[in-house]
Amino acid sequence: MATQGQVITCKGMYACLFHLKPYLLLSVNLISTPISSIAAVAYEPNKPLVIEDVQVAPPQAGEVRIKILFTALCHTDAYTWSGKDPEGLFPCILGHEAAGVVESVGEGVTEVQPGDHVIPCYQAECRECKFCKSGKTNLCGKVRSATGVGVMMNDRKSRFSVNGKPIYHFMGTSTFSQYTVVHDVSVAKIDPKAPLEKVCLLGCGVPTGLGAVWNTAKVEPGSNVAIFGLGTVGLAVAEGAKTAGDTRITGIDIDSKKYETAKKFGVNEFVNPKDHQKPIQEVIVDLTDGGVDYSFECIGNVSVMRAALECCHKGWGTSVIVGVAASGQEISTRPFQLVTGRVWKGTAFGGFKSRTQVPWLVEKYMNKEIKVDEYITHSMTLGEINKAFDLLHEGTCLRCVLSTSD
Amino acid sequence: MATQGQVITCKGMYACLFHLKPYLLLSVNLISTPISSIAAVAYEPNKPLVIEDVQVAPPQAGEVRIKILFTALCHTDAYTWSGKDPEGLFPCILGHEAAGVVESVGEGVTEVQPGDHVIPCYQAECRECKFCKSGKTNLCGKVRSATGVGVMMNDRKSRFSVNGKPIYHFMGTSTFSQYTVVHDVSVAKIDPKAPLEKVCLLGCGVPTGLGAVWNTAKVEPGSNVAIFGLGTVGLAVAEGAKTAGDTRITGIDIDSKKYETAKKFGVNEFVNPKDHQKPIQEVIVDLTDGGVDYSFECIGNVSVMRAALECCHKGWGTSVIVGVAASGQEISTRPFQLVTGRVWKGTAFGGFKSRTQVPWLVEKYMNKEIKVDEYITHSMTLGEINKAFDLLHEGTCLRCVLSTSD
Repeated sequence: MATQGQVITCKGMYACLFHLKPYLLLSVNLISTPISSIAAVAYEPNKPLVIEDVQVAPPQAGEVRIKILFTALCHTDAYTWSGKDPEGLFPCILGHEAAGVVESVGEGVTEVQPGDHVIPCYQAECRECKFCKSGKTNLCGKVRSATGVGVMMNDRKSRFSVNGKPIYHFMGTSTFSQYTVVHDVSVAKIDPKAPLEKVCLLGCGVPTGLGAVWNTAKVEPGSNVAIFGLGTVGLAVAEGAKTAGDTRITGIDIDSKKYETAKKFGVNEFVNPKDHQKPIQEVIVDLTDGGVDYSFECIGNVSVMRAALECCHKGWGTSVIVGVAASGQEISTRPFQLVTGRVWKGTAFGGFKSRTQVPWLVEKYMNKEIKVDEYITHSMTLGEINKAFDLLHEGTCLRCVLSTSD
Repeated sequence: MATQGQVITCKGMYACLFHLKPYLLLSVNLISTPISSIAAVAYEPNKPLVIEDVQVAPPQAGEVRIKILFTALCHTDAYTWSGKDPEGLFPCILGHEAAGVVESVGEGVTEVQPGDHVIPCYQAECRECKFCKSGKTNLCGKVRSATGVGVMMNDRKSRFSVNGKPIYHFMGTSTFSQYTVVHDVSVAKIDPKAPLEKVCLLGCGVPTGLGAVWNTAKVEPGSNVAIFGLGTVGLAVAEGAKTAGDTRITGIDIDSKKYETAKKFGVNEFVNPKDHQKPIQEVIVDLTDGGVDYSFECIGNVSVMRAALECCHKGWGTSVIVGVAASGQEISTRPFQLVTGRVWKGTAFGGFKSRTQVPWLVEKYMNKEIKVDEYITHSMTLGEINKAFDLLHEGTCLRCVLSTSD
């Protein structure tokens, strides 16, 4: 692990520096030079990731280079890797749910310094843009134009390369690498006592589910809740809903085996759509005396999104889209569903302000107020990432955490 | 006008009563007997309404017979009349935006009595059902199963007949008649000083628009608002939005002539989609630095509903569907629109609790806090109703009020 002030050795770079003219030396950050990093590179959609040495350039102004220690896999990584994401750029380094330690920082970075324990956040928080200042959303706009196309804001280029050829960033995080460079507005500094192999999960799935309940839906005590899809996000929704108190939580999944685990997270009823002839929304409406107060779609299937809306109670039922649908797909319903009082919403990163609230979530975990360990079903090394992706599609895997240091 | 205790003369009925046995007489409400009423009957879809004498039976338990003095026409009447409403039943008596005086009441009716000035409310408020008690919606469920199929709850029959053949009720109101029978939970008692030829408008369009802003969207001061469709409901939305204070209100209509009138209701910018090549949502997003805070669809067109959602600002924009779409039509969008923070809602009768809040709206009108007179562009008699329907489709007509007594 790189600590504050440590010089990253890189023989070639050193040799180069000796020949620089004095006025150029003044502008070079001597404590941060290109660094070799083992990373999993996605060269082509749907082809195995390639584990290899990648050059990671030093952080420029407003950037932070992080030594990633643990990274989990999430379905969004798999979606882009599959080639179905039309915005997916190749070659790239995927990964967005991780934890690590700051290795070096670029000019002007004040809120973190080398040695700080951090969680990279694909959802930035600059606290200055129209979005951050609105008080109404967590969708910071500051670096979106760069992270959306796999580069950094400063020079619209990547910090990753293999043999001089650039490798795109992904979601502004690219955590399937021993080192990554992110914008400073995308780094949450956390309690150094927090176990990084656990709290890496607070970079995506768990906050997304909890926040969908706490921030987006604002579920009240005594509510009737339906959760479509009992993966990590769906279970986090259940845990969030349980904390509202006195909630009736119905889990819906086509894999009945998931109910046993789901019970531990607060799900107290279960419906498998395969067990019914009727559309699932009708089944839920019948079971819940007119529909649920809140529903959450945690799959990314547009047909299920419709069912989730239509199983809501007339007059007040609110449905939150949490899952990410494949590109180009559309949701539909009769407008009557909304005119008669249902509300259709969505959430990204659970509405959490990343830099401000991820540290707070870490504290809640440390105080045993939220689960994290319970989502980790598998642990592997970065070198085993292709095997880990296979696991992700199996019903028994919630989260697989990869160590980058082995 | 019938006053309290007045016997409605009906020679045939009197003759009949004289032959009734004493024990039968006990159960007959002598102050309320069948009554002849001039009404506009819709015998077939899209065929001229027929002005003729209709028999209006006495109110049964929990029912109120109202002498309608003034009724306006609304697009929902025209929609059902057109035959496009699959739930439309013929023959029927349309009309749902009116005002009148209670003529007689059935057993158990305590909150109004003959002589009370009232506005019939197609949206009931029983204050007892799950919906009314929820505190979350104005969609009372008590009489919906009857009003939805053109009959009264008590015996699942109509109170209207012509030559002994029943004529269906419409929306639980049927105000295109000198007399109508409604459920007691559908009657708002109002200030007897209020001019009925004006406040009849508080039975539908004006509250729908105001309430969409005040109750459903809850527009805050300084908001950026887009209104699609500048008819009565759209203008009421504008007035509601204006009262929020410091609002930028963009009206969107394919008839540019409507802007002049709309200015009086608070619209301070205007866009005609026909003047632009780009989709209207893109035009609005460009004009408003990323989109509006609130949009309202006041037409009933599902393509416009989509545009209204998609012209909302990322992160927080809320779109409210106010217009009623043709049956079977569906709204669509990419789920990404919701995941990135937009909210899709709808409203019925503006979310107002009818019996409780219509009298309050009447007071606001009497105190000159809301407009009503300004929506009335035409006045006619019930006998001229077919001409009035023609007018409704002309751009210069907002509301045409029909007097039933001439």
